[in-house]
Amino acid sequence: MERVGGIMAAEGVSVDHIHALEHTIAFGMVEDATEHGAAIDEWPELHARIMAADILVLGTPIWLGVKSSVANLVVERLYASSGRTNDKGQYLYYGKVGGCVVTGNEDGVKACSMETLYALQHIGYTIPPQADCGWLGDIGPGPSYGDTVDGSDRPAGYDSEFTNKNTTIMTWNLIHMARMLKQAGGIPVTGNTAKGWSDVTNATQFDPDPISG
Amino acid sequence: MERVGGIMAAEGVSVDHIHALEHTIAFGMVEDATEHGAAIDEWPELHARIMAADILVLGTPIWLGVKSSVANLVVERLYASSGRTNDKGQYLYYGKVGGCVVTGNEDGVKACSMETLYALQHIGYTIPPQADCGWLGDIGPGPSYGDTVDGSDRPAGYDSEFTNKNTTIMTWNLIHMARMLKQAGGIPVTGNTAKGWSDVTNATQFDPDPISG
Amino acid sequence: MERVGGIMAAEGVSVDHIHALEHTIAFGMVEDATEHGAAIDEWPELHARIMAADILVLGTPIWLGVKSSVANLVVERLYASSGRTNDKGQYLYYGKVGGCVVTGNEDGVKACSMETLYALQHIGYTIPPQADCGWLGDIGPGPSYGDTVDGSDRPAGYDSEFTNKNTTIMTWNLIHMARMLKQAGGIPVTGNTAKGWSDVTNATQFDPDPISG
Amino acid sequence: MERVGGIMAAEGVSVDHIHALEHTIAFGMVEDATEHGAAIDEWPELHARIMAADILVLGTPIWLGVKSSVANLVVERLYASSGRTNDKGQYLYYGKVGGCVVTGNEDGVKACSMETLYALQHIGYTIPPQADCGWLGDIGPGPSYGDTVDGSDRPAGYDSEFTNKNTTIMTWNLIHMARMLKQAGGIPVTGNTAKGWSDVTNATQFDPDPISG
Repeated sequence: MERVGGIMAAEGVSVDHIHALEHTIAFGMVEDATEHGAAIDEWPELHARIMAADILVLGTPIWLGVKSSVANLVVERLYASSGRTNDKGQYLYYGKVGGCVVTGNEDGVKACSMETLYALQHIGYTIPPQADCGWLGDIGPGPSYGDTVDGSDRPAGYDSEFTNKNTTIMTWNLIHMARMLKQAGGIPVTGNTAKGWSDVTNATQFDPDPISG
Repeated sequence: MERVGGIMAAEGVSVDHIHALEHTIAFGMVEDATEHGAAIDEWPELHARIMAADILVLGTPIWLGVKSSVANLVVERLYASSGRTNDKGQYLYYGKVGGCVVTGNEDGVKACSMETLYALQHIGYTIPPQADCGWLGDIGPGPSYGDTVDGSDRPAGYDSEFTNKNTTIMTWNLIHMARMLKQAGGIPVTGNTAKGWSDVTNATQFDPDPISG
Repeated sequence: MERVGGIMAAEGVSVDHIHALEHTIAFGMVEDATEHGAAIDEWPELHARIMAADILVLGTPIWLGVKSSVANLVVERLYASSGRTNDKGQYLYYGKVGGCVVTGNEDGVKACSMETLYALQHIGYTIPPQADCGWLGDIGPGPSYGDTVDGSDRPAGYDSEFTNKNTTIMTWNLIHMARMLKQAGGIPVTGNTAKGWSDVTNATQFDPDPISG
Repeated sequence: MERVGGIMAAEGVSVDHIHALEHTIAFGMVEDATEHGAAIDEWPELHARIMAADILVLGTPIWLGVKSSVANLVVERLYASSGRTNDKGQYLYYGKVGGCVVTGNEDGVKACSMETLYALQHIGYTIPPQADCGWLGDIGPGPSYGDTVDGSDRPAGYDSEFTNKNTTIMTWNLIHMARMLKQAGGIPVTGNTAKGWSDVTNATQFDPDPISG
């Protein structure tokens, strides 16, 4: 995440890091859990910071092959606002760009990226090519990305060419796509609003031919 | 797939349908399996048709919660060319846009979309918002999308508002994004080539701070 | 979950329901988070209740195609004790039997079951045949399992034959397998302990033949 | 697969290896594709060999994070017989035990195991604890399990303690569980047949309490 932010900052992108575990985010499929009985819910202010950003990069560790419960919670709370629309009538996150960073000591970058990138595109984010990156150690338990081993003063993960290359590619593609969408004023509005989709050329006008076999 | 193609054609997009099962596509992680012992392999000509398109929409049924072996095979063969690059040095599928259509009689649209959209973005496709659509019947065995039941002369799937809305939204977003990328001449080349990524601002320049906890 | 418990109770199995959201379960890959700075962590007592049971059935809703953050958290905390062993030297959960119940309004029972059953078998649970069950409404937003619609006084989910059949089959298979394992005194110990695996016939003794092609 | 078979053979289990790619297995959700127009379909004889076995271990490489199209095809064809029942009226594969072996050069053992073990338990196989094993190289492209590198005359994968330990544990657990099920005459029949489930204590008898919240 530091490296993604480092490249972005060097290229003139303002970067805001949120470490979800340092905040109290309530469970629940609601926008503000304090209106539903929770004593504390810092999500609304975190959500405002996410809405202020053109790019969202979600980071997660891997537990038993899937993303962490905390990452899951962040996705759920993003989803809780998906019923709201922007001023064009598109879902709230349209025009924004998403990616993810996954690390673990063993296995599961692609599986975690699948569910994370799917969730982001589902609620409105655009996913540019190669929008995930990660690091894994040898199969089995072992050091994490930032752990030093064998008396080395440098974490092994830091110098993985594969990880650094993919992190770089993802970050640049996020920047490229965000600029392209910014310049275009977001995704054009035709055909993609919950209210307007049936007023333009749409699926109901093209009955499928029967399939043989 | 017919409806996706119908909208596209009506909006001036040339549409080419490939029904994978009507072709002999060889197994193997190679570009042309006839060079590796296969008697027949129609993939190279199918791949040429896919390369001629700015948009790829992959359709699949669901078996036991995942996409079909045939859809898997198509993805594998697409992947077999991912080592090749376009004339900018980016992976071959950069600048193209991807989506998917999933139907089954019971459960699994999102799971199939996760793996399909992940694969497409991994090899270079851009994924616009809401790039999947599908239809499912009631949980449990039952009619497929195109099956008629109960003496009805019209398949129940055809009139699902949810499916038709999502099909429309996906299709328009694919068109919007393809036009945007075409106009921009594809994804800008900085930072996203296997050869050039380390010559620009890149991940190796930003050592992460140690994480506490 | 009520129906699973109902069948079990009627068949003489003691049933203990835990509703995770009614408890404060801390984040963190530890057995007792109060030893790591958390103010409250009810997990240790919940874990004791889970350890007292021969059968664990995990229930979860579906959000964006995956299990909920709360279910994820429960799995993570179960996993946090996986380093401990029983008195035979097997992982802690050996000899127990696992299943899951998944409901949502749209799609994802199989995907949630995949990750849940995988996690359970990975930490030592045995998974009998057809160990998951669930209910989904028509594709798209709609009523949940227990919601009544259209002036009906009875939730539609309650009378799904498919769901009731699978719930019954799962529950009986969990009971059958738990009884079988109880009678056998658990899983025999040969070859499956972290310390003893290399003292018996084991993988290192059988070098693979080279694969051609 | 050789190591799994090696342990089994040494412990008196008859072992039959099938390498799917050496056979012509037709696509299609049918038991015998030659009855549906296919020129060749070796599946029926392969299926007979699988039915003769108490244990099934499915091996697969990983492509883009999921199991291969060939492994998918084998699962689909297994599933195509799932409507048939054994002489007790249970699904055909009841009483059998399943596991899997997954290798790739980078990432995805758990994801492939999730879908494979899920499919097996869904059609009737019992999954004992830790029923998967695998090997992965460092993240990124690199040698496969059986590849030699750096002038070494020995594939690096062969000596992974983690892989050998898990392969051993899985294999012994498959043997233990198969013996237990054989001794018990399979899974007891109460409550788990498509025809008989509603004649015993079953889900329809226990209406859930309404959930608050």
